[in-house]
Amino acid sequence: MTDQDDTPQTGITVSKEEDFSEWYTQILTKADLADIRYNVKGFVVYRPWATISIKKMYRKYEDLLEQNGHLPLVMPSVIPERNFQTEAEHVEGFAPEVFWVSEVGSEGERLNERLALRPTSETALYPMYSYWIRSYNDLPFKRYQSCQVWRYEGKMTRPFFRGREFHWIEAHNVFATMEDAKEQVKEDMQMTYQMLQDEFCIPIIFFQRPEWDKFPGAVHTYAADALMGSGKVLQLPSTHLLGQNFSRPFNVSYIDEDGQEKYGYITCYGPAISRIYGAMISYLGDDKGLILPYDLAPVQIVVVPIIFKNKEKIVLDKAYELHEKLKETYNIRLDDSEDSPGQKFYFWEMKGVPFRIEIGPRDIKKEQVVIVRRYDGEKFFVKEDQLEAKLADLASKYTKELWKKAFIDFESEIEVAYEIDSAKEAIENGKIVACGFCSIDKDGERCAEVIEKDVGAFVRGKRVDEEKHDFATCLVCNKPASCTVYLAKSY
Amino acid sequence: MTDQDDTPQTGITVSKEEDFSEWYTQILTKADLADIRYNVKGFVVYRPWATISIKKMYRKYEDLLEQNGHLPLVMPSVIPERNFQTEAEHVEGFAPEVFWVSEVGSEGERLNERLALRPTSETALYPMYSYWIRSYNDLPFKRYQSCQVWRYEGKMTRPFFRGREFHWIEAHNVFATMEDAKEQVKEDMQMTYQMLQDEFCIPIIFFQRPEWDKFPGAVHTYAADALMGSGKVLQLPSTHLLGQNFSRPFNVSYIDEDGQEKYGYITCYGPAISRIYGAMISYLGDDKGLILPYDLAPVQIVVVPIIFKNKEKIVLDKAYELHEKLKETYNIRLDDSEDSPGQKFYFWEMKGVPFRIEIGPRDIKKEQVVIVRRYDGEKFFVKEDQLEAKLADLASKYTKELWKKAFIDFESEIEVAYEIDSAKEAIENGKIVACGFCSIDKDGERCAEVIEKDVGAFVRGKRVDEEKHDFATCLVCNKPASCTVYLAKSY
Repeated sequence: MTDQDDTPQTGITVSKEEDFSEWYTQILTKADLADIRYNVKGFVVYRPWATISIKKMYRKYEDLLEQNGHLPLVMPSVIPERNFQTEAEHVEGFAPEVFWVSEVGSEGERLNERLALRPTSETALYPMYSYWIRSYNDLPFKRYQSCQVWRYEGKMTRPFFRGREFHWIEAHNVFATMEDAKEQVKEDMQMTYQMLQDEFCIPIIFFQRPEWDKFPGAVHTYAADALMGSGKVLQLPSTHLLGQNFSRPFNVSYIDEDGQEKYGYITCYGPAISRIYGAMISYLGDDKGLILPYDLAPVQIVVVPIIFKNKEKIVLDKAYELHEKLKETYNIRLDDSEDSPGQKFYFWEMKGVPFRIEIGPRDIKKEQVVIVRRYDGEKFFVKEDQLEAKLADLASKYTKELWKKAFIDFESEIEVAYEIDSAKEAIENGKIVACGFCSIDKDGERCAEVIEKDVGAFVRGKRVDEEKHDFATCLVCNKPASCTVYLAKSY
Repeated sequence: MTDQDDTPQTGITVSKEEDFSEWYTQILTKADLADIRYNVKGFVVYRPWATISIKKMYRKYEDLLEQNGHLPLVMPSVIPERNFQTEAEHVEGFAPEVFWVSEVGSEGERLNERLALRPTSETALYPMYSYWIRSYNDLPFKRYQSCQVWRYEGKMTRPFFRGREFHWIEAHNVFATMEDAKEQVKEDMQMTYQMLQDEFCIPIIFFQRPEWDKFPGAVHTYAADALMGSGKVLQLPSTHLLGQNFSRPFNVSYIDEDGQEKYGYITCYGPAISRIYGAMISYLGDDKGLILPYDLAPVQIVVVPIIFKNKEKIVLDKAYELHEKLKETYNIRLDDSEDSPGQKFYFWEMKGVPFRIEIGPRDIKKEQVVIVRRYDGEKFFVKEDQLEAKLADLASKYTKELWKKAFIDFESEIEVAYEIDSAKEAIENGKIVACGFCSIDKDGERCAEVIEKDVGAFVRGKRVDEEKHDFATCLVCNKPASCTVYLAKSY
C-alpha cells in the first residue's frame, strides 16, 4: 500500500482536554481523515486513512452479524412517499429530516411521486418482508445491509459524528414471538459490547431510553452510550424493539403451525460505523494524534532508519532487510524519505501506527532494534534475532492492553443525587448522576425538561444491566420513583 | 451461514438458448437473486444469494486496485448543480439522466441549489483533487471508491444489467504526463482481463470506442465487450482517458520540478460490479440454474444424505461426520431437510453450489462418497480416506476449468465482410463482423448509422490488441478505410 497523502505536517497545536473541538478539527486535517471543503453543507469526504479503518470496522461487524445468522442484502436507496407514510409515528419522526428526490433530467421534469432518500429502511424493507415471509418455517428471518443514509440535520454537523449523509449497518429481524424478539435485542447488545469494547476500545453502557427519546414507531429503544470521560456521553448503536407496530401496517405476517395467520415481531439494530469511527478516534486519540486498535490501523509498523553521515548505507540496508523480513506478516511501511527522524516520528504518531521500529548505527553494532509502542510511548530494546517473537507478542496484546487503558468503570463515574442542586453540582464536576425518577413513560417528560434546564443534563434512561441503586422519590417532582435513571451531558 | 430463503422451488421451465429473457427472469426468482417487486421503477432488491457473491467480487476487485496503488475514499453521493455544469460535454451527456434532490423536510422546502444524485463522480471529486494535489511529488495520484450511482435510464431496465441505481467501483487517477495516463489505461485493461476472465470467467475483448460512443468529456474511451456467444456482446468495464479535459476546468494542477504550474492528466475507470454479476450469471448459467466460479459461490459444497428406511441413522451420522470434518476448510452446508434427494439435487444445482457430496448406505458399505461437480455434472467416486485430498484438488481447479469451458476465442467469432449484404448475413448467422471503416472520429458517425439500420449491428470500435485484418475501403461509403472496426449485436 502506498499513501500519497503523506506530506509532513506540523503536529496538533492544542490539548485535547482543553479544547476538544479544535483538537478534533486539527486531527481530521493533520492525519488526513476527512475534508470539510466539499461544497454541500453537512456532507464531507472521507479520505483514505479513515476509509481504510472504516472498511475494516465494517468487515468485523458484518462477519459477526453473519456468524449470528444475519444474511446481507441490498435495498434501493430511495423510498416512495406512500411507503414512507404507512406508519404514523415513523413518518412524523422522520419527515422533517427527509431529502426528497422530486425532479429528473435536464428539464427538471417532476416525478409523479416524490422519492425519499432513505433516512432508515423500515418502510422500504417491510413491504418486501411481507412478500418473503410466508410461514413459521421462515422465522426467525434475519437480514442486514451496509449502506449510507441521509438525514437533513438542522443541528451543527461534525465530520463522522453527525452529518447529513452517514454510513451504517442496519439489521432488521422478524420473529414469531415477543420473547424471541427480546432475545434478539439482547444479542444486539452483546454484539455491541463485543465490537465497541473488545474491538474498538470504546467503553459503553446500555440504557433503555425514555418514551420521549425512542425511535419513532418503536415499543422500546435500547441505546449504547459511550462514556467519553468527564461525565460526557455520546449515543452509539441502538437496537429497537418494534413489536408489531410495523408488521401490522406493512402486513408482515406468517402462517403458524396451527394454520392461523399471525403478525411477526420485529427488531431493528443500527450501528452507525462512521459515527463509531468518530467516537473511537476522539476517545482514544491523544495530543500527538491518532491511537487506533491494532487491527484497524491502515499501517501497523513503520520502520524508521536513523541515518548519520557515512553510515547511511549500512543503516538503510538493515532497514530494507527488516522490512523485507516482516512484510509478509505485517502491514509495514519503511519511511526512507528525506525527512529527519524526528519529523518521521511525529508524522507516524499522528497517523496512529501501533509500532515504530528504529534502527541506527549503534543498534546495528549491538545487533538490536528499538520498538516504540504508540499508545504509551514505551520503548523495547530487542535483540535482532528475537525481533519477530517480540513483535508477535506485542502485536497480539496491543488491542487488549489499549482497552485496559481505555476502560472506564461506569460505577466510578456515577454520583448519586437526591436534589436538583447536588445533581447540578455533580454534573458540573464531570460526573454522571444516578437519581430517582417518576416515570420514563410519556408522563415523565416534564420532569426531564426540568432536568435539562436546571441540571444541564439529559435523562439517558434506565440501565439495562443490573441496577443497584434504589430511590424512593423522583428527583424533580418528589412523586414515588418508578425507577433509577442516569443524567449526563451529551455530545 | 443459514439461508432462510431455501424454500424448494420448481426448476427453470425454459431453455436459456431458446428464450434467454424468460430464462433470466426465472433464474432471478428461483435462485433468490433479485426481487423486482420493489415499488419504484428501475430499482430492485438484491437478495442474499446475489449479495454474498457481489460482496466477494467487490473484495477481489478492491484488493487488486490496492495492490496497484489505488487508495480508497468515500465521497458524498450528492453533487451540487454548479459543479455538475463545469465541464460542458459532461453535463450535456449526463444531465438527461440525473435524479435531482430539490426539496427537504415535511413541508418540502425548496433547496437553494439542487443536488444531483451522482451519476458518476468526476465533478464531485476533481474540485477536491484541486485541493489535494500540489506538487509533482503528489503524482501519480490514484484513488477509488466503491459506491452506487443513479441514472434515470429511459430504456428498459433489467435487474443487475441496467437499472436506475447500480453498484460500481470508480477509480480516478492523475498523472504528470499523457504517457503516464496512457499507461494507466493499459493497467486498467489488464486488471479487467484479470478480474473478468480469470476470476469471473467472462470472455471479453477491448475496443477503443468511436467518437460518438465515448464517455462525455473523454479524449478516448476503451470498453470491454463481453462475448456472450452467438455474436452478441455486452458492454462491461470501460476506462477513459480524460487528458486535461477535466483538469483545466476543475483546476487540477501541480507545481512541477521546474517550478511551473501544470495541469494533470486524468484517467477514470468504472467497473460496474452489479452489471458484471448480471453478465456472469447469464453467461455461465445453464438450464439447471446458476454456475458460479468457486470463490464466488456463497456455499461451495453441499452434503446430501441419501436416506432409505431403516438406514437413516447410519447415513445421517456419516453425513454429520463429513460435514464436521470439512467445515473448517470449506463453506459447506448439510441438507438434512425433509425434501427428497432429487429435490435437494435440483435445489442446490439451481443455486450454483460447485460440489455436491452424496452419501448413501451403499457408499458407506464401500467406504466411499460420491462428489458431483456442478459445471459439467461429472461424478467422482472417492474412497472416504481420500476425500479431503480429492476435494482440495477439484476445488483448486474448478474456476480454471470453468474458464476453459467458458472461453470464447474471439477469432472464431469473426467473419470478415466487404459488403453491407454479407455483413448483414453474417450478423444474422450469429457472427461478429470485421470490416473496413472510414473513420471512428465524428465524421464516421453517418456510416455507423447506416450500419445500425442496414446491418442491424453496432460499430463497437477499433480493437485495442493487435489488429490482423486490413481493409482498403469503408464498408459503407467506400472511402479509404482508416481502420478495421467490429460490428456486433449488443444486449
